[in-house]
Amino acid sequence: MNDDPALEAVAGNGLLHRRLFLRGSVAAGLTFMTAKTATAAPPDVPASMLVPGAGMSGYGLRSPHEDHVQRGFGSLPGTVGTGASRTPLEHLEGIITPGALHFERHHNGIPDIDPAGHRLLIHGLVERPLIFDLDSLSRYPLVSKLQFIECSGNSGANNAAEPPNVSAGTIHGLVSNSQWTGVPLSILLDEAGVQSEGRWILAEGSDAAGMSRSVPMTKALDDAIVAIYQNGEHLRPGNGYPMRLFLPGWEGNMSVKWLRRIEVTAGPTMTKDETSKYSDLMPDGRSLLFTFPMEVKSVITSPSGTNAMQGPGLYQISGIAWSGAGRVGRVEISADDGESWAEAALDDPVLPMSLTRFRLPWRWDGGPAVLQSRAVDETGAAQPTRTAMLAGRGSAYRYHYHAIQSWAVTESGEVSNVYS
Amino acid sequence: MNDDPALEAVAGNGLLHRRLFLRGSVAAGLTFMTAKTATAAPPDVPASMLVPGAGMSGYGLRSPHEDHVQRGFGSLPGTVGTGASRTPLEHLEGIITPGALHFERHHNGIPDIDPAGHRLLIHGLVERPLIFDLDSLSRYPLVSKLQFIECSGNSGANNAAEPPNVSAGTIHGLVSNSQWTGVPLSILLDEAGVQSEGRWILAEGSDAAGMSRSVPMTKALDDAIVAIYQNGEHLRPGNGYPMRLFLPGWEGNMSVKWLRRIEVTAGPTMTKDETSKYSDLMPDGRSLLFTFPMEVKSVITSPSGTNAMQGPGLYQISGIAWSGAGRVGRVEISADDGESWAEAALDDPVLPMSLTRFRLPWRWDGGPAVLQSRAVDETGAAQPTRTAMLAGRGSAYRYHYHAIQSWAVTESGEVSNVYS
Repeated sequence: MNDDPALEAVAGNGLLHRRLFLRGSVAAGLTFMTAKTATAAPPDVPASMLVPGAGMSGYGLRSPHEDHVQRGFGSLPGTVGTGASRTPLEHLEGIITPGALHFERHHNGIPDIDPAGHRLLIHGLVERPLIFDLDSLSRYPLVSKLQFIECSGNSGANNAAEPPNVSAGTIHGLVSNSQWTGVPLSILLDEAGVQSEGRWILAEGSDAAGMSRSVPMTKALDDAIVAIYQNGEHLRPGNGYPMRLFLPGWEGNMSVKWLRRIEVTAGPTMTKDETSKYSDLMPDGRSLLFTFPMEVKSVITSPSGTNAMQGPGLYQISGIAWSGAGRVGRVEISADDGESWAEAALDDPVLPMSLTRFRLPWRWDGGPAVLQSRAVDETGAAQPTRTAMLAGRGSAYRYHYHAIQSWAVTESGEVSNVYS
Repeated sequence: MNDDPALEAVAGNGLLHRRLFLRGSVAAGLTFMTAKTATAAPPDVPASMLVPGAGMSGYGLRSPHEDHVQRGFGSLPGTVGTGASRTPLEHLEGIITPGALHFERHHNGIPDIDPAGHRLLIHGLVERPLIFDLDSLSRYPLVSKLQFIECSGNSGANNAAEPPNVSAGTIHGLVSNSQWTGVPLSILLDEAGVQSEGRWILAEGSDAAGMSRSVPMTKALDDAIVAIYQNGEHLRPGNGYPMRLFLPGWEGNMSVKWLRRIEVTAGPTMTKDETSKYSDLMPDGRSLLFTFPMEVKSVITSPSGTNAMQGPGLYQISGIAWSGAGRVGRVEISADDGESWAEAALDDPVLPMSLTRFRLPWRWDGGPAVLQSRAVDETGAAQPTRTAMLAGRGSAYRYHYHAIQSWAVTESGEVSNVYS
């Protein structure tokens, strides 16, 4: 067909080498074929050039033509704000989640907090109990980290017996990525003076659920921060305004929002939120407690469930990968239901505990295909198949679903969720 | 006072080594002294814990308590949208500018564009003129880059004879940083087939100003993209929705917004926007044309103009640095009006042509101080003093102001803009 070496197939069913798009041109004789050849006349001068445009604003809005890009959300029956909203991953690109589209998981709604009245108490097994308000906390040294947060219940829709035919965001949208800026918790604890028997902390939010989790002191002193900024501006109300705990790479609910209290304790407090919830029921009836890190994971967002292909030809497969253990090491793509795999290109920057964007060229021949991505992190941990994951954990295991996502492409170009 | 080696003064007037905050604790006997010691009782249970919170939303808003964080803006007399709005740098942290607070510079307002009707024509000295709409363009391979854009007129307020006593954003807020995702222009030009005599392009926007600039083909084929996403979501209307040219590191107006036409030409077109404007008048009456790259620059944002200090003690100096030539190499801070300098810590990631956040501990003794930052990029280019820059360019030179910013701190803790 074409002897351009860049068109070398690197895995079955049309996957091409990742360098194809990196060299800044396509390939001799191979175009995307989606542009139209222009005729002699340029396009008509658009109406927008004939009248002055709108003026400026202090805080901008997106285009009304983008109103269809929304988080999906639902609350438990009989409640106002107990539930979750999900990032529409299939509509986003890159690795930054805009604040307005960041996922939210609330246990009793979003509290309305005036920062002037908000206080954070650090107490318990400390030499000097301390109280901070937003102004005093902002005086402390800040650090900024571009990192993901993922609800441990993310992707649980794929625990259903039949694969739900919904979008990538509806299944996997309880993960988002922001630049979080805050004060290292280690500095605050150092100032309070942790007593030698203080091995855990309890973090409590000021929402109506009194959301509270126990965190080992090792994590509190390692990379935990009290975050006050999200993507440059102060936290969004649904993400803990005016301050939240942020525990990089650990299950999202532990990054307690609307943080009001950190109590240094000798052991875990065994709160309702870590015993009745966020524990993992095993096949033998026992539960795993304190399964903190989020495991290595990836999902193809383009094309993805409910998308329609535009006909046979060249495509770019694109998606996100992440790991609570550090950097993404590599991402592999299959177009033939896992028979063969090709390594994807990773966009810079590849940061620890951050979403990483991967891309690979694919020449779809119009036949049936099953697209999968498989992430391996820098520790060597690899994303399992759904079959392998469920075999190890049993069907009652509710959290930490991180198996390979399979998207089937039909000859008519419909893309849908399948189990493989 | 204190023999902790981390408190070693590394430059005059209280600058401390950057490692002080990196080790995760402060220093024996030295606290920030802004937290209050708690008394026996914990804070009262806040009202927010006594009632269910608010429910979720599809597209979220920031807290109403943040309404004071706004872009300042102004339009030329008699016009609706000819002017600029500025990012409030002093209110932001990290390196990402939220879309709602990204600076805007418009030459005749913000056009209202329905992407369904928008077209991009690539024509001129090409083999195959092509027309793209947003759907067909989105089919092409995308790349994502976290990069700044800066108006070449940024910081021009400091050309005034007397230093304006305004905020960091009011002076320097015509710079913002986003993750831009788009199609490499090289791939589109490759598909159109550039003829051998095609050495420049003309880029034209579909605003009422018909904003248009000439770009050398070398840049077009190097790292230019046609951007369609900004921080994960589609471009904001004020930043070119649905598509803009993006030229990393080059003066902002060349990254033509609302892009409708790229014409491949043999030479520069000499549009009104590159002759009557965005050319640099020299002391001898001649003008420099095509001064494309933005030079190495930095500004301290905390503390900064119009801030008030909270009394003597330990502070973190924080600011942003950037260069159109690549990565920031290092940033140095002075607290004694340039007599002595200390190297700041740089937050990861340090990316080419991206804002970079720098930080340094400072123990303010309550006396007068002049704070300055000086960036050096990876090519070795260093930010000049204001005196040196003006001496070289003359007073009529309007663009590319990138001199060292000086903030005076008085004994009463007022921070204001000064020339030094």
